[in-house]
Amino acid sequence: SKYEYVKAFEMPDTLIPNTWIVVRVDGRSFHKFTTKHEYAKPNDDRGLNLMNRCALETSKEFTDIVLAFGESDEYSFVIRKSCNIFERRSSKISSSIVSYFTSQFVYRWKEYFGEYALQYPPTFDSRAVCYPSDQNMRDYLSWRQADTHINNMYNTCYWALVLQGGCTPKEAEQTLCGTLSDAKNEILFTRFNINYNNLPQMYRKGSVIYRKMVTEQGIDSRTNEPTTKSKKRLVIDHIDIIADKFWNDNPDLLK
Amino acid sequence: SKYEYVKAFEMPDTLIPNTWIVVRVDGRSFHKFTTKHEYAKPNDDRGLNLMNRCALETSKEFTDIVLAFGESDEYSFVIRKSCNIFERRSSKISSSIVSYFTSQFVYRWKEYFGEYALQYPPTFDSRAVCYPSDQNMRDYLSWRQADTHINNMYNTCYWALVLQGGCTPKEAEQTLCGTLSDAKNEILFTRFNINYNNLPQMYRKGSVIYRKMVTEQGIDSRTNEPTTKSKKRLVIDHIDIIADKFWNDNPDLLK
Amino acid sequence: SKYEYVKAFEMPDTLIPNTWIVVRVDGRSFHKFTTKHEYAKPNDDRGLNLMNRCALETSKEFTDIVLAFGESDEYSFVIRKSCNIFERRSSKISSSIVSYFTSQFVYRWKEYFGEYALQYPPTFDSRAVCYPSDQNMRDYLSWRQADTHINNMYNTCYWALVLQGGCTPKEAEQTLCGTLSDAKNEILFTRFNINYNNLPQMYRKGSVIYRKMVTEQGIDSRTNEPTTKSKKRLVIDHIDIIADKFWNDNPDLLK
Amino acid sequence: SKYEYVKAFEMPDTLIPNTWIVVRVDGRSFHKFTTKHEYAKPNDDRGLNLMNRCALETSKEFTDIVLAFGESDEYSFVIRKSCNIFERRSSKISSSIVSYFTSQFVYRWKEYFGEYALQYPPTFDSRAVCYPSDQNMRDYLSWRQADTHINNMYNTCYWALVLQGGCTPKEAEQTLCGTLSDAKNEILFTRFNINYNNLPQMYRKGSVIYRKMVTEQGIDSRTNEPTTKSKKRLVIDHIDIIADKFWNDNPDLLK
Ligand SMILES: Nc1nc2c(ncn2[C@H]2C[C@H](O)[C@@H](COP(=O)(O)OP(=O)(O)OP(=O)(O)O)O2)c(=O)[nH]1
Ligand SMILES: Nc1nc2c(ncn2[C@H]2C[C@H](O)[C@@H](COP(=O)(O)OP(=O)(O)OP(=O)(O)O)O2)c(=O)[nH]1
Ligand SMILES: Nc1nc2c(ncn2[C@H]2C[C@H](O)[C@@H](COP(=O)(O)OP(=O)(O)OP(=O)(O)O)O2)c(=O)[nH]1
Ligand SMILES: Nc1nc2c(ncn2[C@H]2C[C@H](O)[C@@H](COP(=O)(O)OP(=O)(O)OP(=O)(O)O)O2)c(=O)[nH]1
Ligand SMILES: O=P(O)(O)OP(=O)(O)OP(=O)(O)O
Ligand SMILES: O=P(O)(O)OP(=O)(O)OP(=O)(O)O
Ligand SMILES: O=P(O)(O)OP(=O)(O)OP(=O)(O)O
Ligand SMILES: O=P(O)(O)OP(=O)(O)OP(=O)(O)O
Ligand SMILES: [Mg+2]
Ligand SMILES: [Mg+2]
Ligand SMILES: [Mg+2]
Ligand SMILES: [Mg+2]
Ligand SMILES: [Mg+2]
Ligand SMILES: [Mg+2]
Ligand SMILES: [Mg+2]
Ligand SMILES: [Mg+2]
Ligand SMILES: [Mg+2]
Ligand SMILES: [Mg+2]
Ligand SMILES: [Mg+2]
Ligand SMILES: [Mg+2]
Repeated sequence: SKYEYVKAFEMPDTLIPNTWIVVRVDGRSFHKFTTKHEYAKPNDDRGLNLMNRCALETSKEFTDIVLAFGESDEYSFVIRKSCNIFERRSSKISSSIVSYFTSQFVYRWKEYFGEYALQYPPTFDSRAVCYPSDQNMRDYLSWRQADTHINNMYNTCYWALVLQGGCTPKEAEQTLCGTLSDAKNEILFTRFNINYNNLPQMYRKGSVIYRKMVTEQGIDSRTNEPTTKSKKRLVIDHIDIIADKFWNDNPDLLK
Repeated sequence: SKYEYVKAFEMPDTLIPNTWIVVRVDGRSFHKFTTKHEYAKPNDDRGLNLMNRCALETSKEFTDIVLAFGESDEYSFVIRKSCNIFERRSSKISSSIVSYFTSQFVYRWKEYFGEYALQYPPTFDSRAVCYPSDQNMRDYLSWRQADTHINNMYNTCYWALVLQGGCTPKEAEQTLCGTLSDAKNEILFTRFNINYNNLPQMYRKGSVIYRKMVTEQGIDSRTNEPTTKSKKRLVIDHIDIIADKFWNDNPDLLK
Repeated sequence: SKYEYVKAFEMPDTLIPNTWIVVRVDGRSFHKFTTKHEYAKPNDDRGLNLMNRCALETSKEFTDIVLAFGESDEYSFVIRKSCNIFERRSSKISSSIVSYFTSQFVYRWKEYFGEYALQYPPTFDSRAVCYPSDQNMRDYLSWRQADTHINNMYNTCYWALVLQGGCTPKEAEQTLCGTLSDAKNEILFTRFNINYNNLPQMYRKGSVIYRKMVTEQGIDSRTNEPTTKSKKRLVIDHIDIIADKFWNDNPDLLK
Repeated sequence: SKYEYVKAFEMPDTLIPNTWIVVRVDGRSFHKFTTKHEYAKPNDDRGLNLMNRCALETSKEFTDIVLAFGESDEYSFVIRKSCNIFERRSSKISSSIVSYFTSQFVYRWKEYFGEYALQYPPTFDSRAVCYPSDQNMRDYLSWRQADTHINNMYNTCYWALVLQGGCTPKEAEQTLCGTLSDAKNEILFTRFNINYNNLPQMYRKGSVIYRKMVTEQGIDSRTNEPTTKSKKRLVIDHIDIIADKFWNDNPDLLK
């Protein structure tokens, strides 16, 4: 039709080839959402597990995702450098991932929150970012995991002070203002008998989803002999991805 | 932390100021989705009404949306030129809208499909496009509404031939190949006694959501006198937006 | 060849259709360049006329340029909305214009500076910017012309104080710091007997290049009768383009 | 002023950090330019040497350029990954380089063409492209150098056929149409007694500009003893940059 010329106003938004693509989704106004839905403070297992499940399904659906890292109301999806889905068009990639993630979140809410009904439909935003080198991509993940640690330590102290220590929010804030990691550990231990390092890894390290080489025991159906075979499985781990160990243990990730 | 430098890899994606922004969302692989969920052919009222509801809620949530137009598995949201939400960052706008729309779709599925359960979570993609002039923006909408007409006429014939006319898909396709509008009208009328113009407007014109000036009757609580007052209400209409009439009747839209 | 894949790394950079394109070129480190070439202070006629000539030639070469505005070491080229040169690729447009402008500058240096030799080849940078509405484009030009006035008034005072008033640069700066237009006029008039409004228009208003309707007298070669015909000529004017008058007098510019 | 808002229409165009930036400049309509200036066919030493000189000066001026490769009317400038000039703004980098290159071209024309006057000022276009990996960047250069070979072999045959072989342009074209490298070598050798491999390296390999480690002999001013010291010098070479040798010999280039 004579109106079709308007299609030409769509601007191309291809992501540079041969770069890692990271899509990060983040809950919009989740301060309000978590309050409204009475999330446990500072970490709600139902909420975190639901996020993990959505990310797992997303990683299954978009097979170019090699690793996903999540904490709080956000998840980062690392897409392999050679990926050519949607011809690397930024908005197609970024919008499809955030839409599917959101869809899963609402779809599976009940699996994780049971009778506690979803009060209103949540929103996530998303963006796609290119990282040229493996080091840049690893530094991105280190940035998020370091952030997890910092935020969790702060939030753990804050809520201990408020919920157990009888502080007002303001007092808790002032107590923590400017304190280093050691001081926070000290507060937790001496005032609340909490050993920070014994808290669940999921809170302290966030969640890592990737295809891990696992060995599975089976029975050969012909011979009835026990068998072991190695295969890749999507797993959710709560481990350090800053140091080299994880990357050395999973060399395929950088291939 | 020393990893924070990775934030600088996020590239700005501001949309040009003083342009209409159109965000179009479109169902991913809805051929499969509608088949799997046994949508009526060619138009499923439950499906279309659910889409309309999602778009209505989206237009309520993002108040810079002045008009939305929907057909099939897609919806276009027209955002006013002076909008400054998210500082006009393309990915923030586009991802938030598609995420909220998707979220509504899953959240309200049951309201429209009742006992017919959602089989898997749907995905939509989205994009943001700038239109500099009012004419360009209107032409965009005309493009979509003309498309609605063309597709609906084709689909109506096609499914009449297949479902009522005993044609195979291939035969139906061949029958329609290259036919003009008149010929299709003729087929519908002579072979299936369908007067195309009597089909529901929603199928033929798509759906338009906008803030309409309506007069509401009331009772003055003090005097008990009947009152009329004019106010803006978000409505869903199925009307022509190609001709000038609609725009003359709703002059605020272009303000 | 097997290396051709690298071509795909070139990212498209189309400018939005139906918008005014403004390409602004600006001398790189012209503080140094004008000092080295002993430009008259604050305005050097040779330098300004050379800039004007380069812009005139550029406007001749790129026929989509409808108007150009220059001051100091910069020139802005306004390209009509419907322009499709280089398929509106930003870098092609912007680089070709700055290259041609620079080329003219060196090529014609001698015409304007005579025996005063060019000491080293100058550089200009350039950028392309889209303006959706006529008002935005006019406001862009008003921005530049208002800037011309402000800078010229300041510079005129500054150099009067330094060159005629015996001030050190620092003293001149301090004298002018925070002064308004009126105070500067006063200084010029009372201390240096300069009536600012009598300074050349080129200094105060900058230079405007456009196709002006002019009437030309001629002789009809057949009848020997005198004739007048109107035609468009590229001209360089030094007039106000902020108020409506200029635009009313030249209605074709906005067509 | 109230017009300053227009500055916000300038869209950021930062190039992704930690990627090689290649700026390629190419003569606009150099078919016409070289014809008008009677360039020798297929290769004009004056023209090529002038291009090389301009690129050398450009590489001196923009110290982030680690290597430049030229052929015909084009030059590619490879800028190191860590470069932060103009905060990596694409248009600033690309326009400044093309402007300076053009400026040099006109400025130095006489040095290379002597009495043969420049007939009109030439234009070059430019673009900036990001290459994430060393391999991508090397492949880019291989693409250009392979192109040099293909074009030069074709042009050498073509002009031998036309200028010495008495062919019309059309006949020459037909003779060469579809021929492989070997056949072209054969034509040159048997019909024109030209051994392609003996043609100047500059024609066959193009020109490479880079900082080379050279040893320079000197005299110690105190002791009058002869000395040798190694230092980096900008050089113009005509050598293969496709194979590894060049890169192994110059390991600093990839650092
Ligand atoms: N109580 C509780 N709150 C959580 C949990 N996970 C996330 N949140 C809350 C804490 C923060 O207020 C919020 C995440 O912070 P953000 O910086 O993303 O802010 P928010 O989503 O409110 O705003 P945004 O739209 O992202 O700018 O979500 C949880 O497990 N328990
Ligand atoms: N039966 C039925 N099908 C519908 C209805 N609305 C939309 N559809 C189907 C028809 C098309 O196959 C599909 C929409 O076409 P699209 O061009 O968007 O293709 P699709 O979503 O399959 O692929 P895409 O991921 O968008 O490229 O949705 C409906 O009311 N009834
Ligand atoms: N004496 C004199 N100087 C002039 C004339 N026209 C321009 N200039 C000088 C004054 C300024 O120092 C300079 C233009 O200012 P800019 O803001 O463009 O700075 P500049 O080119 O030095 O740096 P840039 O590379 O553009 O950031 O050129 C003139 O006619 N006479
Ligand atoms: N005779 C002669 N011609 C040359 C020499 N170097 C370059 N040329 C000519 C051959 C080509 O016609 C032209 C370069 O080809 P291009 O593909 O860049 O085309 P052209 O510059 O004409 O158009 P463009 O504006 O770049 O699209 O320059 C030379 O040394 N001698
Ligand atoms: O949302 P924040 O504050 O955690 O930080 P950000 O996501 O980088 O900010 P934005 O969402 O505005 O891009
Ligand atoms: O999806 P289509 O085929 O209706 O057309 P499009 O949406 O313009 O294509 P794409 O989704 O690839 O941008
Ligand atoms: O160069 P300036 O300072 O006059 O201002 P600008 O041109 O907007 O700045 P930049 O050249 O850095 O874009
Ligand atoms: O100019 P060409 O034809 O050698 O090829 P190109 O430079 O890639 O084309 P364009 O100048 O149009 O980007
Ligand atoms: Mg955010
Ligand atoms: Mg959030
Ligand atoms: Mg968050
Ligand atoms: Mg589509
Ligand atoms: Mg679809
Ligand atoms: Mg569709
Ligand atoms: Mg500047
Ligand atoms: Mg300057
Ligand atoms: Mg300037
Ligand atoms: Mg080209
Ligand atoms: Mg060329
Ligand atoms: Mg060329």
